[in-house]
Amino acid sequence: MKSSKTIIKGGRFLISGTDEPVLSGYMTIEDDLITYIGKEEPLMEDDVQVVDGSRLLFMPGLVNTHGHAAMSLLRGYGDDLALQVWLQEKMWPMEAKFTGEDVYWGTSLSVLEMLKGGTTTFLDMYDHMDRVAEVVELSGIRSVLMRGVIGLCPEEVQNHKLAEAISFARNWHGKADGRITTMISPHAPYTCPPDFFVKFVQAAHDLDLPMHTHMSETKREVEQNVVDYGLRPVAHLEKLGMFTRPSIVAHGVHLNDEEIEILARHDVGVSHNPGSNLKLASGVARVTDLLKAGVKVSLGTDGAASNNNLDMFEEMRLAALIHKGVSGDPTAVPAPEALRIATEYGAKSIFLNDVGRLAVGMKADFIAIDIDQPHLLPHTDLLSHAVYSASAKDVEHVWVNGKQVVKHGECITLDEEAIRRKAQESFDGLLKR
Amino acid sequence: MKSSKTIIKGGRFLISGTDEPVLSGYMTIEDDLITYIGKEEPLMEDDVQVVDGSRLLFMPGLVNTHGHAAMSLLRGYGDDLALQVWLQEKMWPMEAKFTGEDVYWGTSLSVLEMLKGGTTTFLDMYDHMDRVAEVVELSGIRSVLMRGVIGLCPEEVQNHKLAEAISFARNWHGKADGRITTMISPHAPYTCPPDFFVKFVQAAHDLDLPMHTHMSETKREVEQNVVDYGLRPVAHLEKLGMFTRPSIVAHGVHLNDEEIEILARHDVGVSHNPGSNLKLASGVARVTDLLKAGVKVSLGTDGAASNNNLDMFEEMRLAALIHKGVSGDPTAVPAPEALRIATEYGAKSIFLNDVGRLAVGMKADFIAIDIDQPHLLPHTDLLSHAVYSASAKDVEHVWVNGKQVVKHGECITLDEEAIRRKAQESFDGLLKR
Repeated sequence: MKSSKTIIKGGRFLISGTDEPVLSGYMTIEDDLITYIGKEEPLMEDDVQVVDGSRLLFMPGLVNTHGHAAMSLLRGYGDDLALQVWLQEKMWPMEAKFTGEDVYWGTSLSVLEMLKGGTTTFLDMYDHMDRVAEVVELSGIRSVLMRGVIGLCPEEVQNHKLAEAISFARNWHGKADGRITTMISPHAPYTCPPDFFVKFVQAAHDLDLPMHTHMSETKREVEQNVVDYGLRPVAHLEKLGMFTRPSIVAHGVHLNDEEIEILARHDVGVSHNPGSNLKLASGVARVTDLLKAGVKVSLGTDGAASNNNLDMFEEMRLAALIHKGVSGDPTAVPAPEALRIATEYGAKSIFLNDVGRLAVGMKADFIAIDIDQPHLLPHTDLLSHAVYSASAKDVEHVWVNGKQVVKHGECITLDEEAIRRKAQESFDGLLKR
Repeated sequence: MKSSKTIIKGGRFLISGTDEPVLSGYMTIEDDLITYIGKEEPLMEDDVQVVDGSRLLFMPGLVNTHGHAAMSLLRGYGDDLALQVWLQEKMWPMEAKFTGEDVYWGTSLSVLEMLKGGTTTFLDMYDHMDRVAEVVELSGIRSVLMRGVIGLCPEEVQNHKLAEAISFARNWHGKADGRITTMISPHAPYTCPPDFFVKFVQAAHDLDLPMHTHMSETKREVEQNVVDYGLRPVAHLEKLGMFTRPSIVAHGVHLNDEEIEILARHDVGVSHNPGSNLKLASGVARVTDLLKAGVKVSLGTDGAASNNNLDMFEEMRLAALIHKGVSGDPTAVPAPEALRIATEYGAKSIFLNDVGRLAVGMKADFIAIDIDQPHLLPHTDLLSHAVYSASAKDVEHVWVNGKQVVKHGECITLDEEAIRRKAQESFDGLLKR
């Protein structure tokens, strides 16, 4: 195959962690990689595609490290309720009716929303994962996928689900030009008995894959873990061997100092889900303490049913705002750190080491936001604007793995009209069944 | 003048506080008023302008009850700093250089952002207020304006500022077809000595106007008030007579039970500024306690330099989210209440009793959001979507006082191109001077 080459000309670029975080200049993309970024104009060969970068701020694509894409079908179906009530009375009864078709359209709706909003990588833990992978293949997005297994069922059903999780992880790892990787994912310590949980640890070893689970989202769940197993969730999962695998846990709201130390020691990532945690009144995670301890903190939207959108700019801003307000320290999670949490740390947390920064040799997963708008003017500090002022709808263009997937705000890989219609039909069907 | 008549046909309408909060049907606007809203199709006369309401959700325009519009010129100029450092080292030195021209363009930038984002009324406390009023006249927005006076200066200068505040309030009250009302506004108890503050109370009595001030934004400010005057700010302002006038205070973050009781007794409104309070690490206001005590709570963005945008959907969502997360009660500030805080309570807080709801006899200040978008589907609960999923950029049309000011996302009363250019030039000029 002939290689493709694109040059962004005259743009502004967010270069994380350098003295000059906003670079004015050029970026070259060859096939799926960034091959140049700098102030000097690169050689413009004849067959190069040139993109006019004026009016645009280029930044790494946002990385969403925890979610359940198909749950967008239940957006707005049950708000202002406690987590357990919301799960047991609203979500689980509806989700039990989800077919592969529902998952396909719900995931399509979410991937459409995420791509248009500048998210280039998402982690998804759900059921009917073959259908999720189909959407990923078609849409051009990057993802880390896993069958999330709830083990509150007879052993026979447990084993069937485990086999499904293993087979999915094996079949899809590395697929879609490498855009799909997989993990092994028991749903949570409170939904998977210890003897079942350890089978996932074994499977992760056998397949040499990382692990993901929900952990310490609510106070009640932590207390129940102590009642049931005599240990808080972190020590419990450590005992079950999960942290012998590269791991990332979702939420981590209720952690004591000792638990933070254990997570740091095992290099376990924490997917911080501020919107969902606030909405379900789960609490405010100890993000500044986690960062101080050297824990990889990243951001997740969780499902759209508890958020209620998949705007990663909003999560980034929430992370930058709430920890200031709650701690009383206005320097907590400053803008450059919030941006890294939403990009670079996110990628590292899900074990993608060539994603999350604009730099030579990295995968060309990047987005452009239109900065010539009232709420992004004047141009005082564009990094600040990206974190504190922008939103999903400011995204003008998106590239994943070197290929453009959103152009002038329109997703060019998916049929938006059909997805909108089918998503509504799916929800209407769920209500009727 | 011949009367104008517009009928919205086949739309969805958010009707606050009723059994059926989302009504499908029609709304008639005659001149500046809503004259019909209901399920039955009204008579379509020949000279009626008909607006197709399909794909749109109509809701009251958002009411921003605290801000400093011209400060948008300093958006992103100083982040992640403590309030006093930010004010004294960043804001005040730059603001001292503001000319009337700077205020005009900064305010234009903010009004443009607010109108496009669905805010139809804003309160503004600043300097060079004649230039602010000019922008309001031209743009078609509704506003409550006041010269905010900092009294840390010689008596001669104090008196000059007071005279300016009085003359502005007298000259502009009721102007621009009644879209402008005015208030009397000493900046804060910590910037206005008591003998100076009471002159404003007297002026408010003389002119029969309400009062507005910053109050109890930071813990330090409350403590200093006790040191200086032997009273916490609420008792201090009560003693100075402020609450003998209809009043609204901004922030009210640090309040004890007794203070909440005093505010409730005098029917003093509190403009809650969640974004700014979080960003400056001022803390989290006791919103659920204020509401429980019967205090009118409304929402303000504060200036864009501490927010850093003027998206009232974001403030509404922050109000609905943070009080859940911090209190641990997922039913705190539910979606319908958050919507009322951002609209109806907002209007009442600034003494506009015919604004803030879609109902017959109310001023036709309303907005339409495009609900046929991925992040607003499926249509489970449109009120929930307005609060938890939407953003400023979902606003398709805006009407104020019966006149359309935003059409298909474009502001038709202001020259956006010129404002964007002039706002940048103003900031560049401030840096150079």
